[in-house]
Amino acid sequence: MAAFSYPSYLIRASSNTDSHDQNKQKLNNIRINGTSSMSSMKPDTLSQPAGVASTYNSFTSVNGNSITTEELRQNIPTKKRSVDPHRQGLIIEGGVGYRQTVVIRSYEVGPDKTATLESILNLLQETALNHVWMSGLLSNGFGATHGMVRNNLIWVVSRMQVQVDHYPIWGEVVEIDTWVGASGKNGMRRDWLVRSQATGHVFACAISTWVMMNQETRRLSKMPEEVRAEISPWFIDKQAIKKDCPEKIVKLDSKARNMDSNLKTIPDEILESHKLSTIILEYRRECGNSDIVQSLCNPDEGGILEDGLKHKNGISLNGFSLASEILEGSGLLCNFEKVSLRYTYLLQVKGERGNEEIVRGRTTWKRKMPSKPFTT
Amino acid sequence: MAAFSYPSYLIRASSNTDSHDQNKQKLNNIRINGTSSMSSMKPDTLSQPAGVASTYNSFTSVNGNSITTEELRQNIPTKKRSVDPHRQGLIIEGGVGYRQTVVIRSYEVGPDKTATLESILNLLQETALNHVWMSGLLSNGFGATHGMVRNNLIWVVSRMQVQVDHYPIWGEVVEIDTWVGASGKNGMRRDWLVRSQATGHVFACAISTWVMMNQETRRLSKMPEEVRAEISPWFIDKQAIKKDCPEKIVKLDSKARNMDSNLKTIPDEILESHKLSTIILEYRRECGNSDIVQSLCNPDEGGILEDGLKHKNGISLNGFSLASEILEGSGLLCNFEKVSLRYTYLLQVKGERGNEEIVRGRTTWKRKMPSKPFTT
Repeated sequence: MAAFSYPSYLIRASSNTDSHDQNKQKLNNIRINGTSSMSSMKPDTLSQPAGVASTYNSFTSVNGNSITTEELRQNIPTKKRSVDPHRQGLIIEGGVGYRQTVVIRSYEVGPDKTATLESILNLLQETALNHVWMSGLLSNGFGATHGMVRNNLIWVVSRMQVQVDHYPIWGEVVEIDTWVGASGKNGMRRDWLVRSQATGHVFACAISTWVMMNQETRRLSKMPEEVRAEISPWFIDKQAIKKDCPEKIVKLDSKARNMDSNLKTIPDEILESHKLSTIILEYRRECGNSDIVQSLCNPDEGGILEDGLKHKNGISLNGFSLASEILEGSGLLCNFEKVSLRYTYLLQVKGERGNEEIVRGRTTWKRKMPSKPFTT
Repeated sequence: MAAFSYPSYLIRASSNTDSHDQNKQKLNNIRINGTSSMSSMKPDTLSQPAGVASTYNSFTSVNGNSITTEELRQNIPTKKRSVDPHRQGLIIEGGVGYRQTVVIRSYEVGPDKTATLESILNLLQETALNHVWMSGLLSNGFGATHGMVRNNLIWVVSRMQVQVDHYPIWGEVVEIDTWVGASGKNGMRRDWLVRSQATGHVFACAISTWVMMNQETRRLSKMPEEVRAEISPWFIDKQAIKKDCPEKIVKLDSKARNMDSNLKTIPDEILESHKLSTIILEYRRECGNSDIVQSLCNPDEGGILEDGLKHKNGISLNGFSLASEILEGSGLLCNFEKVSLRYTYLLQVKGERGNEEIVRGRTTWKRKMPSKPFTT
C-alpha cells in the first residue's frame, strides 16, 4: 500500500530539531523487524502556487457531489479493480498481489542498452502506487489510504534492498509483481519481482519496510486500527528475497576513503565497467532540498583487499586508485571477476549538534556483460 | 522514422575540428526548410566494455540464422505491425501514422502533480522510436532504418519546437499521435500531438526537422535513394503546429544578462511560479560529455520590458532581479499575466578558434495554474 519512495522534490528539510529528537524517542517504542532506530524521509507540505484558475482546475458538480476536474482526470478508483488496460495491470496472488507489464523505454536505458538502476527504482515506485490505485484504497496523496489521510498519516520508508541479477534491455517486455505483508506490529513490507515476460527469468527482486508518520508533527505513528482494517486484508506472507539476513551497515566517519560533497562516490572506472548488483539503504532521518549534505564512501575491507590482490606497483586495488587500464594491463581481471566490489556509504547533514545521519547504504558491483552498443 | 533526440549519454565530443569545418561546408549544400546552417548532435560510437559472456549475450541459432539473444529479447518486428498491445500502440492515419496511449507515471510529475517538460520530451522520443518499431524498418540502432545502417547513416535533429498548452497530471491517460513528412529534399519532419484520452483536448504539440549524418565521417549526407524508398511511403503532409513561421533566434554574446557554467539560466522564482509554454531549439554543432560548455541567457526585450512594467522601486521586471514576492506584494501580477515571459539562449563550447555554437534556443513561460499539491 506504499510508494517505494517519495520523489526527491518532495523531500523537505525539517526546521525543527526538537521534532527529530521526539522522533528518535518515539522510534524506541516502535520496533520494525528488529530495527530499533528509525529512518524517515520528510515529504513536507508543498507550497501551492497562486495563479489563475482555468477550466482544468475549476470545480464541477457531478451527481450532487463537488469533485474537482483533477479527480475526473486522474480517475482514481473508489472500489477494487482487477484489471487496468491502460496501466497493463492485473490483480494476482488470489486477489491481493499486483502484476504490471511494462516495456523498457528508450530513455530508460544507458549506452549499453540496459535499463539504468534509476529506471528500475522508478518502475518499482510506479507499480507500488498502481497496486494501491487498483485496491480502491488510494486517497489524494502519494500512496496514502483514505484511513491514513483521515489520520493525517503518510508512509515513510525505513529500509530498501534491491538485487539486480540481469538488467532488462531497451524494448524488452518485463512483468513486475508486487505485494505487501506485515512488518512487526506497526510496519508494512513491500516486495517486488521483476521478470522477463517471454521467459519468466527473474531479472531483479526487491524488499522494503515502511512505517507511518504524522504529516504535521513529523512523528512516527502506530498503525491506527482503521488503517489496519484497510490494508491487512492485502497482506501475504511471501518473500521476494528468500535469505534476508540483514548485516549491520557500519557507520562511516571522517576516516572514510572518499568524502565528497558532490555526492559522486564511485570511481568512473568502476561505473564504466561494472553494474550495480545489490543496493541496501537504511533511512534514519529526514533531509530536504535546503540541507547541505555530505556523502561518505568506503570500499569494503571484506571485498578485494582480503583476497590479497595488490597491484605489482604497490597500488591497492581496493579503492579509488583503481584504474581499469591498470587492471587490464596487469592481467588481474580474471582474479578480479571472482570478487564483487563492495562499498559502504553514509549520507549526513550538518545539524545543530554535529552531523546527523540521513541514510546508510551498501552496494555490490559486478562486471558488466558485453553488449552490442547502439548503432549511432 | 527518427527519434526525437539522442540521450545525453550518447552525445560525445568530436576530437576532429576539421570534420566540423567539413560539416559546415556540407551544410551549405543542403538546405532544410530554409535553414542554411545545419545543426547536429554527435552520438559517437560507444565503447564496448570487455567482460564475461553470459547466457544473455551468447549466440543462438534459430532456423539456421545466427541471431543474438539480444535480438530475441528486443523482438524488433521485421514487417509492419498495426497494433502492439504492450506498447499500447496503433497504426493510424491510413496506415502511416502512430498513436500510443500512455498513463502519466508517478515519477514523471513535479510537486504540482503535472508532467515535467522532460517527461513530455521523453514520451515524444519514445513514441517516435515506437513508430519506427511498428513500421518494420527499425534496425539495430537508435531509430535508423535498415537502409540507413547499410549506408552507415544516423539521424540528427536540426530543429525542435514544442508547445505545451496544458500539462497532463499524474495518472492521466494521454494519447500521443506522431507522423513524418518530407522536409526539403534531404530532410524529414516529425510532428506530434498529445491529447487527453478522455476528452480529446490537445495538451501539447511538437514539430521537428531531421537530417542524416555519416556515422564515421560525421558529415551530413543526402538521403540515399534506398532510404527514400523506405521512408517516403510514410510521409504525409500534415502540420501539428499550423502557423509555423519560425522567427530568427538572435545569437547571444557576452552582453547576455546571464552567463552560467552550471547551465541554470532561469531564476528560481520563475521556475516555481511558471511553466514552460514553448521551447524552440536550433542545433548547430555537435558537443559531448568531455566538452566544457557555457550557457548564455537573456530575458526577451520584446517581453515585459516593452510593456513598460517597472517596479515602483525601480527594479526592472525584465530579468533576474524579478522576485515573485515583489510582484505579488505590489499587485503587479494582473498586468504580469498578460505578458509571457520569454528568454533567448545560447549554448556554446570552447573551440580552438573561439567559442562555437551548439544550440540556440527560445522559451516562453506562462504562470502556473493552481493545483492541489500532493497530500504527503
